[in-house]
Amino acid sequence: MRVLGIDPGMARTGYGLIESADDRPSLIDCGTLTTPPRAPVSERLRALYVQLVDLLDRYQPIEVAIEEPFVAKNVRSALAVGQARAVAILAAANAGLPVYEYTPNQVKRSITNYGHSGKEQVQEMVRLQLGLEAPPQPHDAADALAIALCHVWESRLARLIAQSEERK
Amino acid sequence: MRVLGIDPGMARTGYGLIESADDRPSLIDCGTLTTPPRAPVSERLRALYVQLVDLLDRYQPIEVAIEEPFVAKNVRSALAVGQARAVAILAAANAGLPVYEYTPNQVKRSITNYGHSGKEQVQEMVRLQLGLEAPPQPHDAADALAIALCHVWESRLARLIAQSEERK
Repeated sequence: MRVLGIDPGMARTGYGLIESADDRPSLIDCGTLTTPPRAPVSERLRALYVQLVDLLDRYQPIEVAIEEPFVAKNVRSALAVGQARAVAILAAANAGLPVYEYTPNQVKRSITNYGHSGKEQVQEMVRLQLGLEAPPQPHDAADALAIALCHVWESRLARLIAQSEERK
Repeated sequence: MRVLGIDPGMARTGYGLIESADDRPSLIDCGTLTTPPRAPVSERLRALYVQLVDLLDRYQPIEVAIEEPFVAKNVRSALAVGQARAVAILAAANAGLPVYEYTPNQVKRSITNYGHSGKEQVQEMVRLQLGLEAPPQPHDAADALAIALCHVWESRLARLIAQSEERK
């Protein structure tokens, strides 16, 4: 199972690609997509969309996981995050891929077994779970990998529950 | 000049198409696009995108005008409006069309010469400027027509200013 995790933002969108064979996740790629800060919104959204379509095309993930942003600081930043998120969701949906959404607390709980972990703990757990020498950089990319890992573990749990129901 | 005005919303998106020959605007079509209220966000955004792409394809506008939402009541509604707005902007940008943004006050001022007019005044001015027998319904559609009309008048003003500069 190949999963693309996305941490959407208008200025910087983190992405992380994970391959998970037999529930052993490994890193394929991660990084940050940026948009020209002084360009009109329509150009920025279009630039983000084009980069995401290119990522999907290049790596062919079969599922996409994205963060539900419950933590927007104010109306203006909520609007910007909402726009970036919509672009990410549309890029996936237009490619026919299912999109899974997780709250920040679900991601933290799934990665560190604790819903209120700090950024560094999440980065460190991403490093351990992917067997990397150093924590992935920058932290937008690490956050995107955490979202992808969260989806891998949640899918595994759902599968185990379904199997156990079948045996009843 | 054929203009599509969009008043974006997750539940209901108003649209209005105007043809403006010699600065005499006339109504081509208007209405509301809806998305299934209980569907996941990704399905709703995709449904909105598909309907907008279909509209652009059917009516072939050359410019798109959209409201800049300065008036979101709270973080949650800002997020939803941001998402719907991004979908509208992307549908236009992916079709290669320029997107113009106007604040609610700009739209009101341009239509009624007053920045703080009520919904009914805007609807009535849309009716008069398009020579309609009754105000367009529902009001999402009337708002979208107001945005398209605002763009027609603003473009006209910009053109007149440019011509006067040339004569100097």
